[in-house]
Amino acid sequence: MPRDPVPALYCPLPTRMHPESGPIGRRSVAWLERFGLLDDDRTRERIRATRPAEWACRIAPGGTGAGLQLVSDWTHLGFVIDDTRFDAGPIADRPGRLIPLMMRLMHALDHPEAPADDDPFAAAFRNLSARARAGAPAAVVRRWADGNLEWFFSVACLTAHRVAGTMPTLTEYLNLGPRDRAMRLTGSLIELAEGSVLTDADREEPTVRAVTQAANLLVTIGNDLFSFRKEADDDVLESNIVGVIRHRDGGTAEAALARTVELHDRVMCLYLGLRAQLDEDGSSTVRRHLTRLDHLIRGNLEWSVRVPRYGTGSASPWAETPADGRAAAPHLVPIDWWWDQLRTA
Amino acid sequence: MPRDPVPALYCPLPTRMHPESGPIGRRSVAWLERFGLLDDDRTRERIRATRPAEWACRIAPGGTGAGLQLVSDWTHLGFVIDDTRFDAGPIADRPGRLIPLMMRLMHALDHPEAPADDDPFAAAFRNLSARARAGAPAAVVRRWADGNLEWFFSVACLTAHRVAGTMPTLTEYLNLGPRDRAMRLTGSLIELAEGSVLTDADREEPTVRAVTQAANLLVTIGNDLFSFRKEADDDVLESNIVGVIRHRDGGTAEAALARTVELHDRVMCLYLGLRAQLDEDGSSTVRRHLTRLDHLIRGNLEWSVRVPRYGTGSASPWAETPADGRAAAPHLVPIDWWWDQLRTA
Repeated sequence: MPRDPVPALYCPLPTRMHPESGPIGRRSVAWLERFGLLDDDRTRERIRATRPAEWACRIAPGGTGAGLQLVSDWTHLGFVIDDTRFDAGPIADRPGRLIPLMMRLMHALDHPEAPADDDPFAAAFRNLSARARAGAPAAVVRRWADGNLEWFFSVACLTAHRVAGTMPTLTEYLNLGPRDRAMRLTGSLIELAEGSVLTDADREEPTVRAVTQAANLLVTIGNDLFSFRKEADDDVLESNIVGVIRHRDGGTAEAALARTVELHDRVMCLYLGLRAQLDEDGSSTVRRHLTRLDHLIRGNLEWSVRVPRYGTGSASPWAETPADGRAAAPHLVPIDWWWDQLRTA
Repeated sequence: MPRDPVPALYCPLPTRMHPESGPIGRRSVAWLERFGLLDDDRTRERIRATRPAEWACRIAPGGTGAGLQLVSDWTHLGFVIDDTRFDAGPIADRPGRLIPLMMRLMHALDHPEAPADDDPFAAAFRNLSARARAGAPAAVVRRWADGNLEWFFSVACLTAHRVAGTMPTLTEYLNLGPRDRAMRLTGSLIELAEGSVLTDADREEPTVRAVTQAANLLVTIGNDLFSFRKEADDDVLESNIVGVIRHRDGGTAEAALARTVELHDRVMCLYLGLRAQLDEDGSSTVRRHLTRLDHLIRGNLEWSVRVPRYGTGSASPWAETPADGRAAAPHLVPIDWWWDQLRTA
């Protein structure tokens, strides 16, 4: 039965999709099978309902060849490891098993020259690392490997919360959520697929960091809104902003959903403001980066609306105006500094 | 009472020490005091017995000014956080508290624009990040921040082992130990202090990765040998290679110490071989990197021999010849590939 639709979101950003998601996805499924990672029917069915290749083709519409295949393969692998190791499965609440597994995966990513251990995930990560190193600049490969490290660390953090029976505060979640959504490595994968790279100097500049972080939070909120009903059913709301806000404020799920949409739209307005500024001031690679962020944010929503994984039924219409359009910082310590980067007219 | 001396190690590498360790260390202690991190006598006494400024001045003898001060300040902070949060203290066996703390520290490192939360460690890390960003190239700052992430992830992994009551295997430890010894961020700090940077392209090249990893393992083994008696007393041998080898092989502590020295010397011979190769083939920045690795390895040992922290008594003499000088891979999966990088004559 389809779940209740997600409230309409404000998202005036362009969207495109690479046309080859069918064959790319079939190759990714075959790739997973080669590592023995699709051996049971449940996992196979979950991947079918998740459409990772569509996600890849929406967030990297300008990708080509081996690079785009890598985005799709990583995305397939990410969903399988989430569903069978990180978020569910026998070791998801055993940090003493899960974190050492992730540590072994890091070795495969950093040094694919070493043989993989017996774990099929280690073998798959090793394969991705060898392919990335064969085709991409060292700086992108390094960012991608470190992006995986960031993802693993956030998984460790959420597992620790799960075992301790604690919920992150909203302040914590604003930092933790986008890392858990593997946003940094996703950005590197897109660069790897599309072949245009933002330099470290541009990337570390405060306004660029702020606009990128805002995009990453928008993707996180979008994901969390669409997966909320499923994650509430599965009782894993420590990694869902709707659950975190409801835990903080009390009240109904509907009230927490409405607060979440307000936060989404307010961050969207900030994103649009910073984006316009950088579009005027920035180098051509910064402008290219902004286009990638647009596709990431809107592409993720387009995928979320349609994908059977979340069972949210028909597409939510887009809102014409933001639920909260104030151009002022929301009094949330980890992100208020983003608004300081806005030039006041 | 002084503990038994560590067996003699083979280490034919040069050593130098920056002459300003006295004033640099006094400034670091004042810096820690400003953040309220030296409020109790036990911590103050531990830091005095640890001589972090001497370590900094030995591993970065060519450092200058603000950069070298940063190395010393980070080193002081690292020892205090190890002694009061990561390896001992009330949350060292509570991953649900410890990992979220480290996650908040990551935010301070990545985005010093946001106010620090109430934790004094967060405020100190934020201060370091702001200073690093003011004085160093973005690529170095990024590597340093990610080096901290790598360190935190390994602390999470060791905490998980501690709580689960498991020991890492030797295979796991060869990957985990150097990360826990914060080796990557140490390398970035040295670059930051000395002002010469290895490019990502050079850094990701397999031979350069192998020689750097070998240096990092040598530092780890050196540390573990000198801290073994102390860590055996404290019952925290999950992060000590002597304990890991003894757990694998059984037998006496003396036998495990001897095996560890053999591994050290065998890796040292490999290091010398790869080093000679790269000294011939490499760019001037690669050669500069090799000199830094020399100082790191030997400087760490010189400090270990003298520092009251480990109470190992008088200096161990250096061995004239390696305890194991075979130029063949030791059949240890994560590191055997290093020997593949050796040119056969």
